Amino acid sequence: MTEYDEAIKLTGPDDQGRYTGTLSDDWAIGGAVNGGLLMSLATAATAACSTSADGHADPLTYSGVFLSPGTAGEITAYPQILRTGRSMTTAEVRTTQRVDGIEVERSRALLTLGDLDRYAEPVLKSEPAPDMPGPEDCPSAADAPPTPLTGSGFLKRFDLRLDPATVGWAIGRPSGKGEMRGWLKLADERDFDATSLLMALDAFPPVSFDLGSQGWVPTVEFTGYVRAVPAPGWLCMRLSTSTVTGGLLEEDAQIWDSTGRLVAHSRQLASARFPS
Amino acid sequence: MTEYDEAIKLTGPDDQGRYTGTLSDDWAIGGAVNGGLLMSLATAATAACSTSADGHADPLTYSGVFLSPGTAGEITAYPQILRTGRSMTTAEVRTTQRVDGIEVERSRALLTLGDLDRYAEPVLKSEPAPDMPGPEDCPSAADAPPTPLTGSGFLKRFDLRLDPATVGWAIGRPSGKGEMRGWLKLADERDFDATSLLMALDAFPPVSFDLGSQGWVPTVEFTGYVRAVPAPGWLCMRLSTSTVTGGLLEEDAQIWDSTGRLVAHSRQLASARFPS
Repeated sequence: MTEYDEAIKLTGPDDQGRYTGTLSDDWAIGGAVNGGLLMSLATAATAACSTSADGHADPLTYSGVFLSPGTAGEITAYPQILRTGRSMTTAEVRTTQRVDGIEVERSRALLTLGDLDRYAEPVLKSEPAPDMPGPEDCPSAADAPPTPLTGSGFLKRFDLRLDPATVGWAIGRPSGKGEMRGWLKLADERDFDATSLLMALDAFPPVSFDLGSQGWVPTVEFTGYVRAVPAPGWLCMRLSTSTVTGGLLEEDAQIWDSTGRLVAHSRQLASARFPS
Repeated sequence: MTEYDEAIKLTGPDDQGRYTGTLSDDWAIGGAVNGGLLMSLATAATAACSTSADGHADPLTYSGVFLSPGTAGEITAYPQILRTGRSMTTAEVRTTQRVDGIEVERSRALLTLGDLDRYAEPVLKSEPAPDMPGPEDCPSAADAPPTPLTGSGFLKRFDLRLDPATVGWAIGRPSGKGEMRGWLKLADERDFDATSLLMALDAFPPVSFDLGSQGWVPTVEFTGYVRAVPAPGWLCMRLSTSTVTGGLLEEDAQIWDSTGRLVAHSRQLASARFPS
Protein backbone atom coordinates (compact mmCIF):
# COMPACT_ATOMS: atom_id res chain seq x y z
CA MET A 1 0.00 0.00 0.00
CA THR A 2 1.36 3.46 -0.89
CA GLU A 3 2.03 6.15 1.73
CA TYR A 4 -0.98 8.19 0.61
CA ASP A 5 -3.36 5.21 0.55
CA GLU A 6 -2.17 4.28 4.03
CA ALA A 7 -2.76 7.88 5.20
CA ILE A 8 -6.38 8.06 4.01
CA LYS A 9 -7.26 4.45 4.90
CA LEU A 10 -10.64 4.33 6.62
CA THR A 11 -12.67 1.75 8.46
CA GLY A 12 -16.41 2.02 8.69
CA PRO A 13 -19.08 3.02 8.55
CA ASP A 14 -20.08 2.28 12.15
CA ASP A 15 -23.78 2.16 13.10
CA GLN A 16 -23.86 5.97 13.13
CA GLY A 17 -22.33 6.33 9.67
CA ARG A 18 -18.89 7.36 10.93
CA TYR A 19 -15.59 6.41 9.31
CA THR A 20 -12.34 6.17 11.27
CA GLY A 21 -8.77 6.74 10.15
CA THR A 22 -5.40 7.61 11.66
CA LEU A 23 -3.45 10.83 11.24
CA SER A 24 0.33 10.63 11.40
CA ASP A 25 3.13 13.14 11.87
CA ASP A 26 4.50 11.80 8.61
CA TRP A 27 2.01 14.24 7.03
CA ALA A 28 2.50 17.08 9.50
CA ILE A 29 3.91 20.51 8.78
CA GLY A 30 4.37 23.35 11.24
CA GLY A 31 2.99 21.30 14.14
CA ALA A 32 -0.27 20.22 12.49
CA VAL A 33 -1.23 17.44 10.14
CA ASN A 34 -1.58 19.07 6.71
CA GLY A 35 -5.08 20.35 5.96
CA GLY A 36 -4.87 19.10 2.38
CA LEU A 37 -4.49 15.52 3.56
CA LEU A 38 -7.49 16.07 5.83
CA MET A 39 -9.51 17.28 2.81
CA SER A 40 -8.64 14.14 0.82
CA LEU A 41 -9.44 11.88 3.80
CA ALA A 42 -12.80 13.62 4.38
CA THR A 43 -13.55 13.36 0.67
CA ALA A 44 -12.73 9.65 0.63
CA ALA A 45 -15.16 9.10 3.53
CA THR A 46 -17.85 11.13 1.75
CA ALA A 47 -17.39 9.20 -1.50
CA ALA A 48 -17.66 5.89 0.39
CA CYS A 49 -20.85 7.07 2.07
CA SER A 50 -22.29 8.39 -1.20
CA THR A 51 -21.61 5.26 -3.26
CA SER A 52 -22.98 2.99 -0.54
CA ALA A 53 -26.26 4.92 -0.96
CA ASP A 54 -26.12 4.71 -4.80
CA GLY A 55 -24.87 8.31 -4.95
CA HIS A 56 -21.99 9.65 -7.03
CA ALA A 57 -18.33 8.86 -6.41
CA ASP A 58 -16.05 11.62 -7.76
CA PRO A 59 -15.47 14.94 -5.99
CA LEU A 60 -16.46 17.93 -8.15
CA THR A 61 -16.28 20.65 -5.48
CA TYR A 62 -15.02 20.82 -1.90
CA SER A 63 -15.67 23.98 0.17
CA GLY A 64 -14.46 23.94 3.68
CA VAL A 65 -13.16 25.55 6.82
CA PHE A 66 -10.57 24.32 9.30
CA LEU A 67 -11.68 24.63 12.91
CA SER A 68 -8.60 23.34 14.80
CA PRO A 69 -5.28 21.75 13.81
CA GLY A 70 -5.27 18.00 13.21
CA THR A 71 -2.79 16.00 15.31
CA ALA A 72 -1.37 12.48 15.12
CA GLY A 73 -3.91 9.87 16.23
CA GLU A 74 -7.37 8.59 15.46
CA ILE A 75 -9.66 10.76 13.37
CA THR A 76 -13.35 10.36 12.68
CA ALA A 77 -15.13 11.55 9.51
CA TYR A 78 -18.93 11.94 9.56
CA PRO A 79 -20.31 12.36 6.06
CA GLN A 80 -23.96 13.29 5.63
CA ILE A 81 -25.71 13.14 2.25
CA LEU A 82 -27.83 16.27 1.78
CA ARG A 83 -29.23 15.59 -1.67
CA THR A 84 -28.87 12.94 -4.34
CA GLY A 85 -29.91 14.03 -7.81
CA ARG A 86 -29.65 12.33 -11.18
CA SER A 87 -26.26 13.80 -11.98
CA MET A 88 -24.84 15.02 -8.64
CA THR A 89 -24.78 14.23 -4.93
CA THR A 90 -24.40 17.02 -2.37
CA ALA A 91 -22.96 16.23 1.05
CA GLU A 92 -21.50 17.68 4.21
CA VAL A 93 -18.58 16.14 6.05
CA ARG A 94 -17.15 16.92 9.47
CA THR A 95 -13.93 15.51 10.91
CA THR A 96 -13.27 15.28 14.63
CA GLN A 97 -10.62 14.02 17.04
CA ARG A 98 -10.91 13.22 20.72
CA VAL A 99 -8.74 15.45 22.88
CA ASP A 100 -8.71 14.65 26.62
CA GLY A 101 -11.93 12.73 26.14
CA ILE A 102 -13.67 15.62 24.39
CA GLU A 103 -14.66 15.48 20.73
CA VAL A 104 -13.08 18.43 18.91
CA GLU A 105 -14.06 19.36 15.36
CA ARG A 106 -11.13 19.71 12.94
CA SER A 107 -12.82 20.54 9.66
CA ARG A 108 -16.21 20.96 8.09
CA ALA A 109 -16.96 21.03 4.40
CA LEU A 110 -19.69 20.96 1.77
CA LEU A 111 -19.03 18.68 -1.19
CA THR A 112 -20.55 18.03 -4.56
CA LEU A 113 -19.88 14.65 -6.15
CA GLY A 114 -20.57 13.50 -9.68
CA ASP A 115 -19.21 11.34 -12.47
CA LEU A 116 -16.03 13.03 -13.73
CA ASP A 117 -16.10 11.06 -16.99
CA ARG A 118 -19.34 12.81 -17.78
CA TYR A 119 -18.02 16.27 -16.91
CA ALA A 120 -14.58 16.06 -18.50
CA GLU A 121 -15.70 16.31 -22.15
CA PRO A 122 -16.12 18.25 -24.33
CA VAL A 123 -13.58 20.94 -23.41
CA LEU A 124 -15.13 24.21 -24.62
CA LYS A 125 -12.70 26.56 -22.89
CA SER A 126 -9.58 25.98 -20.82
CA GLU A 127 -6.36 27.70 -19.83
CA PRO A 128 -3.11 26.22 -21.17
CA ALA A 129 -0.40 25.07 -18.79
CA PRO A 130 2.26 27.71 -18.08
CA ASP A 131 5.41 27.70 -20.17
CA MET A 132 8.25 26.66 -17.85
CA PRO A 133 11.26 24.33 -17.73
CA GLY A 134 10.58 20.63 -17.20
CA PRO A 135 10.88 19.03 -13.76
CA GLU A 136 14.48 17.90 -14.46
CA ASP A 137 15.47 21.57 -14.93
CA CYS A 138 13.67 22.89 -11.85
CA PRO A 139 15.32 22.93 -8.42
CA SER A 140 13.86 20.54 -5.89
CA ALA A 141 12.26 22.03 -2.77
CA ALA A 142 14.44 19.54 -0.87
CA ASP A 143 17.51 21.56 -1.98
CA ALA A 144 16.17 24.88 -0.62
CA PRO A 145 17.96 26.55 2.30
CA PRO A 146 16.80 25.03 5.61
CA THR A 147 13.86 26.69 7.39
CA PRO A 148 11.98 25.79 10.58
CA LEU A 149 9.73 23.64 8.34
CA THR A 150 12.47 21.72 6.54
CA GLY A 151 12.19 18.66 8.78
CA SER A 152 8.42 18.37 8.38
CA GLY A 153 7.12 14.95 7.47
CA PHE A 154 4.74 16.45 4.92
CA LEU A 155 7.56 17.83 2.76
CA LYS A 156 9.11 14.35 2.54
CA ARG A 157 5.96 12.88 1.05
CA PHE A 158 6.38 14.87 -2.19
CA ASP A 159 8.84 15.50 -4.96
CA LEU A 160 8.25 19.22 -5.47
CA ARG A 161 10.17 21.23 -8.08
CA LEU A 162 9.95 24.99 -8.46
CA ASP A 163 10.29 26.98 -11.67
CA PRO A 164 13.62 28.86 -11.25
CA ALA A 165 11.79 32.04 -12.33
CA THR A 166 9.54 31.95 -9.26
CA VAL A 167 11.91 30.63 -6.60
CA GLY A 168 13.62 33.88 -5.54
CA TRP A 169 11.68 34.00 -2.25
CA ALA A 170 13.58 30.90 -1.02
CA ILE A 171 16.81 32.93 -1.00
CA GLY A 172 15.25 36.13 0.34
CA ARG A 173 14.43 37.69 -3.02
CA PRO A 174 10.66 37.40 -3.56
CA SER A 175 9.57 38.74 -6.95
CA GLY A 176 6.66 40.69 -5.47
CA LYS A 177 4.42 39.43 -8.30
CA GLY A 178 2.56 36.90 -6.19
CA GLU A 179 3.11 33.91 -8.44
CA MET A 180 4.64 30.45 -8.01
CA ARG A 181 4.97 27.67 -10.57
CA GLY A 182 6.36 24.17 -10.40
CA TRP A 183 5.88 20.43 -10.55
CA LEU A 184 4.50 17.96 -8.04
CA LYS A 185 4.73 14.21 -7.59
CA LEU A 186 4.22 11.93 -4.61
CA ALA A 187 7.65 10.80 -3.38
CA ASP A 188 6.72 7.12 -3.72
CA GLU A 189 5.49 7.74 -7.28
CA ARG A 190 1.86 6.92 -6.46
CA ASP A 191 -0.11 8.71 -9.21
CA PHE A 192 -2.67 11.31 -8.28
CA ASP A 193 -6.39 10.64 -8.64
CA ALA A 194 -9.44 12.88 -8.29
CA THR A 195 -9.45 12.69 -4.47
CA SER A 196 -5.73 13.29 -3.94
CA LEU A 197 -5.87 16.32 -6.27
CA LEU A 198 -7.54 18.15 -3.38
CA MET A 199 -4.43 17.59 -1.27
CA ALA A 200 -2.23 18.60 -4.21
CA LEU A 201 -4.05 21.94 -4.53
CA ASP A 202 -2.75 22.89 -1.08
CA ALA A 203 0.67 21.18 -1.18
CA PHE A 204 2.83 24.05 -2.50
CA PRO A 205 4.46 26.72 -0.34
CA PRO A 206 2.03 29.62 0.10
CA VAL A 207 2.06 32.18 -2.73
CA SER A 208 2.38 34.91 -0.08
CA PHE A 209 6.09 33.93 0.19
CA ASP A 210 6.56 35.52 -3.25
CA LEU A 211 5.23 38.79 -1.76
CA GLY A 212 7.76 38.80 1.08
CA SER A 213 5.62 37.17 3.73
CA GLN A 214 7.46 34.49 5.69
CA GLY A 215 5.28 33.15 8.45
CA TRP A 216 2.45 30.71 8.73
CA VAL A 217 -0.48 31.31 6.36
CA PRO A 218 -3.64 29.88 7.93
CA THR A 219 -6.49 29.11 5.54
CA VAL A 220 -9.69 31.03 6.24
CA GLU A 221 -11.76 29.21 3.62
CA PHE A 222 -10.80 26.78 0.85
CA THR A 223 -12.77 25.79 -2.23
CA GLY A 224 -11.34 23.23 -4.63
CA TYR A 225 -12.75 22.11 -7.99
CA VAL A 226 -11.81 18.84 -9.71
CA ARG A 227 -12.46 19.01 -13.45
CA ALA A 228 -11.03 15.71 -14.71
CA VAL A 229 -9.24 12.56 -13.53
CA PRO A 230 -5.53 13.32 -13.95
CA ALA A 231 -3.34 11.25 -16.28
CA PRO A 232 -0.37 9.51 -14.57
CA GLY A 233 2.85 11.47 -14.04
CA TRP A 234 3.93 14.91 -12.87
CA LEU A 235 1.38 17.58 -12.03
CA CYS A 236 2.12 21.07 -13.28
CA MET A 237 1.06 23.72 -10.75
CA ARG A 238 0.55 27.45 -10.79
CA LEU A 239 -0.26 29.60 -7.75
CA SER A 240 -1.23 33.25 -8.02
CA THR A 241 -2.97 36.00 -6.11
CA SER A 242 -4.62 39.17 -7.33
CA THR A 243 -6.07 40.76 -4.19
CA VAL A 244 -4.08 41.28 -1.00
CA THR A 245 -5.64 43.64 1.56
CA GLY A 246 -5.37 43.98 5.31
CA GLY A 247 -3.34 40.78 5.66
CA LEU A 248 -5.88 38.68 3.73
CA LEU A 249 -5.11 37.26 0.33
CA GLU A 250 -6.84 34.90 -2.02
CA GLU A 251 -4.59 32.18 -3.39
CA ASP A 252 -5.61 30.64 -6.69
CA ALA A 253 -4.10 27.27 -7.56
CA GLN A 254 -4.33 25.55 -10.93
CA ILE A 255 -3.19 22.03 -11.76
CA TRP A 256 -2.51 20.54 -15.20
CA ASP A 257 -1.77 16.85 -15.67
CA SER A 258 1.04 15.35 -17.76
CA THR A 259 -1.08 15.66 -20.93
CA GLY A 260 -1.37 19.43 -20.39
CA ARG A 261 -4.99 19.27 -19.37
CA LEU A 262 -6.30 21.48 -16.56
CA VAL A 263 -7.63 18.95 -14.04
CA ALA A 264 -8.21 20.98 -10.87
CA HIS A 265 -8.23 24.51 -9.52
CA SER A 266 -8.90 26.14 -6.19
CA ARG A 267 -9.22 29.40 -4.40
CA GLN A 268 -8.52 29.93 -0.74
CA LEU A 269 -8.70 33.03 1.40
CA ALA A 270 -5.73 33.01 3.75
CA SER A 271 -4.27 35.24 6.40
CA ALA A 272 -0.62 36.36 6.14
CA ARG A 273 1.71 38.91 7.69
CA PHE A 274 3.58 41.17 5.31
CA PRO A 275 6.64 43.28 6.00
CA SER A 276 5.47 46.90 6.41
CA MET B 1 -37.91 50.57 4.76
CA THR B 2 -36.26 49.78 1.41
CA GLU B 3 -37.27 46.78 -0.74
CA TYR B 4 -34.08 44.91 0.11
CA ASP B 5 -34.31 45.57 3.85
CA GLU B 6 -37.90 44.38 3.76
CA ALA B 7 -36.83 41.22 1.88
CA ILE B 8 -34.17 40.21 4.42
CA LYS B 9 -36.11 41.31 7.52
CA LEU B 10 -35.86 38.65 10.22
CA THR B 11 -37.52 37.98 13.54
CA GLY B 12 -35.77 35.93 16.16
CA PRO B 13 -33.98 34.17 17.50
CA ASP B 14 -36.55 31.76 18.92
CA ASP B 15 -35.61 29.47 21.82
CA GLN B 16 -33.79 27.18 19.39
CA GLY B 17 -31.76 29.97 17.80
CA ARG B 18 -33.81 30.13 14.59
CA TYR B 19 -34.59 33.32 12.67
CA THR B 20 -37.69 33.70 10.52
CA GLY B 21 -38.24 35.80 7.41
CA THR B 22 -40.53 35.87 4.39
CA LEU B 23 -39.63 35.19 0.78
CA SER B 24 -41.62 36.97 -1.91
CA ASP B 25 -42.10 36.51 -5.66
CA ASP B 26 -40.92 40.11 -5.96
CA TRP B 27 -37.43 38.54 -5.80
CA ALA B 28 -38.18 35.47 -7.91
CA ILE B 29 -36.70 34.61 -11.26
CA GLY B 30 -37.41 31.53 -13.37
CA GLY B 31 -39.89 30.17 -10.82
CA ALA B 32 -37.63 30.36 -7.74
CA VAL B 33 -36.72 33.08 -5.29
CA ASN B 34 -33.23 34.24 -6.28
CA GLY B 35 -30.45 32.34 -4.56
CA GLY B 36 -28.44 35.53 -4.08
CA LEU B 37 -31.19 37.03 -1.95
CA LEU B 38 -31.23 33.79 0.06
CA MET B 39 -27.45 34.13 0.61
CA SER B 40 -27.85 37.68 1.93
CA LEU B 41 -30.76 36.67 4.18
CA ALA B 42 -28.82 33.69 5.57
CA THR B 43 -25.80 35.93 6.12
CA ALA B 44 -27.90 38.51 7.96
CA ALA B 45 -29.18 35.78 10.30
CA THR B 46 -25.65 34.50 10.87
CA ALA B 47 -24.34 37.99 11.65
CA ALA B 48 -27.19 38.56 14.12
CA CYS B 49 -26.39 35.24 15.82
CA SER B 50 -22.66 35.96 15.85
CA THR B 51 -22.90 39.48 17.29
CA SER B 52 -25.37 38.36 19.96
CA ALA B 53 -22.60 35.98 21.14
CA ASP B 54 -19.89 38.70 20.98
CA GLY B 55 -18.67 37.31 17.65
CA HIS B 56 -17.85 39.22 14.49
CA ALA B 57 -20.39 40.99 12.30
CA ASP B 58 -19.14 41.35 8.71
CA PRO B 59 -19.18 38.51 6.17
CA LEU B 60 -15.69 37.72 4.81
CA THR B 61 -16.50 34.44 3.02
CA TYR B 62 -19.69 32.58 2.15
CA SER B 63 -19.43 29.05 0.66
CA GLY B 64 -22.66 27.32 -0.03
CA VAL B 65 -24.85 24.92 -1.90
CA PHE B 66 -28.51 25.22 -2.90
CA LEU B 67 -30.55 22.14 -2.10
CA SER B 68 -33.99 23.08 -3.45
CA PRO B 69 -35.57 26.22 -4.95
CA GLY B 70 -36.89 28.83 -2.49
CA THR B 71 -40.55 29.78 -2.91
CA ALA B 72 -42.73 32.64 -1.67
CA GLY B 73 -43.59 32.24 2.01
CA GLU B 74 -42.01 31.85 5.42
CA ILE B 75 -38.35 30.89 5.58
CA THR B 76 -36.30 29.84 8.58
CA ALA B 77 -32.54 30.39 8.97
CA TYR B 78 -30.61 28.36 11.55
CA PRO B 79 -27.14 29.77 12.11
CA GLN B 80 -24.68 27.79 14.22
CA ILE B 81 -21.42 29.29 15.44
CA LEU B 82 -18.60 26.77 14.95
CA ARG B 83 -15.68 28.79 16.26
CA THR B 84 -15.08 32.29 17.60
CA GLY B 85 -11.49 33.47 17.48
CA ARG B 86 -9.91 36.81 18.25
CA SER B 87 -10.21 38.07 14.69
CA MET B 88 -12.78 35.81 13.00
CA THR B 89 -15.95 33.84 13.67
CA THR B 90 -16.74 30.69 11.68
CA ALA B 91 -20.34 29.57 11.29
CA GLU B 92 -22.70 27.33 9.40
CA VAL B 93 -26.17 28.38 8.33
CA ARG B 94 -29.03 26.34 6.92
CA THR B 95 -32.28 27.73 5.52
CA THR B 96 -35.49 25.72 5.38
CA GLN B 97 -39.11 26.11 4.33
CA ARG B 98 -42.12 24.01 5.28
CA VAL B 99 -43.72 22.29 2.29
CA ASP B 100 -46.90 20.30 2.98
CA GLY B 101 -45.94 20.23 6.66
CA ILE B 102 -42.44 18.87 5.96
CA GLU B 103 -39.31 20.92 6.59
CA VAL B 104 -37.30 21.13 3.37
CA GLU B 105 -33.75 22.49 3.31
CA ARG B 106 -33.17 25.25 0.76
CA SER B 107 -29.50 26.14 1.29
CA ARG B 108 -26.54 25.31 3.48
CA ALA B 109 -23.39 27.38 3.79
CA LEU B 110 -20.19 27.86 5.76
CA LEU B 111 -19.36 31.48 6.62
CA THR B 112 -16.42 33.36 8.01
CA LEU B 113 -17.13 36.70 9.67
CA GLY B 114 -14.70 39.40 10.74
CA ASP B 115 -14.27 43.14 11.01
CA LEU B 116 -14.01 44.48 7.44
CA ASP B 117 -12.47 47.76 8.62
CA ARG B 118 -9.54 45.72 9.85
CA TYR B 119 -9.17 43.74 6.62
CA ALA B 120 -9.70 46.54 4.10
CA GLU B 121 -6.32 48.27 4.57
CA PRO B 122 -3.58 48.38 3.50
CA VAL B 123 -4.19 47.40 -0.13
CA LEU B 124 -1.02 45.56 -1.21
CA LYS B 125 -2.34 44.18 -4.48
CA SER B 126 -5.62 44.64 -6.32
CA GLU B 127 -7.07 44.49 -9.81
CA PRO B 128 -8.28 47.77 -11.34
CA ALA B 129 -11.89 48.14 -12.49
CA PRO B 130 -12.40 47.38 -16.20
CA ASP B 131 -12.34 50.25 -18.64
CA MET B 132 -15.88 50.67 -19.97
CA PRO B 133 -18.48 53.36 -20.68
CA GLY B 134 -20.30 54.86 -17.69
CA PRO B 135 -23.78 53.66 -16.69
CA GLU B 136 -25.43 56.46 -18.68
CA ASP B 137 -23.84 55.10 -21.88
CA CYS B 138 -24.69 51.44 -21.23
CA PRO B 139 -28.01 49.92 -22.31
CA SER B 140 -30.34 48.96 -19.50
CA ALA B 141 -31.24 45.28 -19.13
CA ALA B 142 -34.84 46.50 -19.03
CA ASP B 143 -34.50 47.52 -22.70
CA ALA B 144 -33.34 44.04 -23.82
CA PRO B 145 -35.59 41.98 -26.10
CA PRO B 146 -38.23 40.14 -24.06
CA THR B 147 -37.40 36.62 -22.87
CA PRO B 148 -39.32 34.14 -20.69
CA LEU B 149 -37.60 35.81 -17.71
CA THR B 150 -38.45 39.43 -18.59
CA GLY B 151 -41.43 39.61 -16.25
CA SER B 152 -39.49 38.25 -13.25
CA GLY B 153 -39.81 40.25 -10.05
CA PHE B 154 -36.08 39.93 -9.40
CA LEU B 155 -35.14 41.87 -12.55
CA LYS B 156 -37.34 44.79 -11.42
CA ARG B 157 -35.43 45.16 -8.16
CA PHE B 158 -32.27 46.33 -9.96
CA ASP B 159 -31.06 48.94 -12.37
CA LEU B 160 -28.66 46.81 -14.42
CA ARG B 161 -26.67 48.27 -17.32
CA LEU B 162 -24.51 46.22 -19.66
CA ASP B 163 -21.33 47.34 -21.40
CA PRO B 164 -22.32 47.53 -25.11
CA ALA B 165 -19.15 45.53 -25.89
CA THR B 166 -20.45 42.49 -23.98
CA VAL B 167 -24.16 42.61 -24.73
CA GLY B 168 -24.22 40.81 -28.11
CA TRP B 169 -25.72 37.67 -26.56
CA ALA B 170 -28.97 39.56 -25.87
CA ILE B 171 -29.54 39.89 -29.63
CA GLY B 172 -28.34 36.38 -30.51
CA ARG B 173 -24.70 37.30 -31.10
CA PRO B 174 -22.67 36.04 -28.13
CA SER B 175 -18.99 36.98 -28.37
CA GLY B 176 -17.82 33.50 -27.39
CA LYS B 177 -15.24 35.07 -25.03
CA GLY B 178 -17.14 34.27 -21.84
CA GLU B 179 -17.12 37.77 -20.41
CA MET B 180 -19.78 40.22 -19.26
CA ARG B 181 -19.33 43.70 -17.80
CA GLY B 182 -21.75 46.28 -16.50
CA TRP B 183 -23.17 48.36 -13.70
CA LEU B 184 -25.57 47.48 -10.91
CA LYS B 185 -27.77 49.49 -8.57
CA LEU B 186 -30.83 48.61 -6.54
CA ALA B 187 -33.90 50.08 -8.31
CA ASP B 188 -34.94 52.02 -5.20
CA GLU B 189 -31.41 53.45 -4.85
CA ARG B 190 -30.69 51.66 -1.56
CA ASP B 191 -26.89 51.53 -1.40
CA PHE B 192 -25.15 48.17 -1.16
CA ASP B 193 -23.46 47.05 2.06
CA ALA B 194 -21.25 44.06 2.89
CA THR B 195 -24.19 41.65 3.22
CA SER B 196 -26.05 42.71 0.06
CA LEU B 197 -22.80 42.41 -1.97
CA LEU B 198 -23.33 38.63 -1.77
CA MET B 199 -26.62 39.04 -3.61
CA ALA B 200 -24.98 41.42 -6.08
CA LEU B 201 -22.32 38.81 -6.94
CA ASP B 202 -25.06 36.59 -8.36
CA ALA B 203 -27.39 39.27 -9.80
CA PHE B 204 -26.06 39.48 -13.37
CA PRO B 205 -27.19 37.26 -16.25
CA PRO B 206 -25.01 34.12 -16.32
CA VAL B 207 -21.71 34.51 -18.17
CA SER B 208 -22.55 31.31 -20.09
CA PHE B 209 -24.95 33.45 -22.20
CA ASP B 210 -21.85 35.01 -23.78
CA LEU B 211 -20.82 31.50 -24.86
CA GLY B 212 -24.11 30.81 -26.63
CA SER B 213 -25.87 29.00 -23.79
CA GLN B 214 -29.45 30.14 -23.30
CA GLY B 215 -31.12 28.07 -20.65
CA TRP B 216 -31.18 27.97 -16.90
CA VAL B 217 -27.74 27.81 -15.23
CA PRO B 218 -28.09 26.13 -11.83
CA THR B 219 -25.34 26.82 -9.32
CA VAL B 220 -23.47 23.70 -8.16
CA GLU B 221 -21.40 25.55 -5.54
CA PHE B 222 -20.92 29.26 -4.80
CA THR B 223 -18.15 30.94 -2.82
CA GLY B 224 -18.22 34.70 -2.34
CA TYR B 225 -15.58 36.92 -0.72
CA VAL B 226 -16.26 40.40 0.66
CA ARG B 227 -13.09 42.48 0.82
CA ALA B 228 -14.35 45.92 1.87
CA VAL B 229 -17.56 47.80 2.68
CA PRO B 230 -18.62 49.39 -0.63
CA ALA B 231 -18.89 53.18 -1.04
CA PRO B 232 -22.37 54.46 -2.01
CA GLY B 233 -23.34 54.48 -5.69
CA TRP B 234 -23.12 52.20 -8.71
CA LEU B 235 -21.30 48.88 -8.51
CA CYS B 236 -19.07 48.03 -11.46
CA MET B 237 -19.22 44.31 -12.27
CA ARG B 238 -17.21 41.90 -14.36
CA LEU B 239 -18.06 38.25 -15.00
CA SER B 240 -15.72 35.84 -16.70
CA THR B 241 -15.03 32.15 -17.11
CA SER B 242 -11.87 30.31 -18.04
CA THR B 243 -12.78 26.61 -17.83
CA VAL B 244 -15.85 25.13 -19.50
CA THR B 245 -15.93 21.34 -19.75
CA GLY B 246 -18.71 18.78 -19.99
CA GLY B 247 -21.40 21.39 -19.37
CA LEU B 248 -19.77 22.69 -16.18
CA LEU B 249 -18.26 26.14 -16.01
CA GLU B 250 -16.82 28.25 -13.29
CA GLU B 251 -18.11 31.82 -13.25
CA ASP B 252 -15.88 34.42 -11.63
CA ALA B 253 -17.53 37.68 -10.59
CA GLN B 254 -15.70 40.81 -9.45
CA ILE B 255 -17.27 43.96 -8.04
CA TRP B 256 -15.72 47.41 -7.75
CA ASP B 257 -17.46 50.23 -5.87
CA SER B 258 -17.89 53.82 -7.11
CA THR B 259 -14.40 54.75 -5.89
CA GLY B 260 -12.89 52.02 -8.14
CA ARG B 261 -12.03 49.73 -5.26
CA LEU B 262 -12.48 45.97 -5.60
CA VAL B 263 -14.93 45.18 -2.80
CA ALA B 264 -16.09 41.61 -3.53
CA HIS B 265 -15.43 38.64 -5.77
CA SER B 266 -16.83 35.17 -6.17
CA ARG B 267 -16.49 31.93 -8.00
CA GLN B 268 -19.29 29.52 -8.68
CA LEU B 269 -19.37 26.22 -10.48
CA ALA B 270 -22.51 26.07 -12.56
CA SER B 271 -24.14 23.70 -14.98
CA ALA B 272 -25.12 24.93 -18.46
CA ARG B 273 -26.18 23.53 -21.82
CA PHE B 274 -24.21 24.64 -24.82
CA PRO B 275 -25.18 24.41 -28.48
CA SER B 276 -23.26 21.48 -29.97
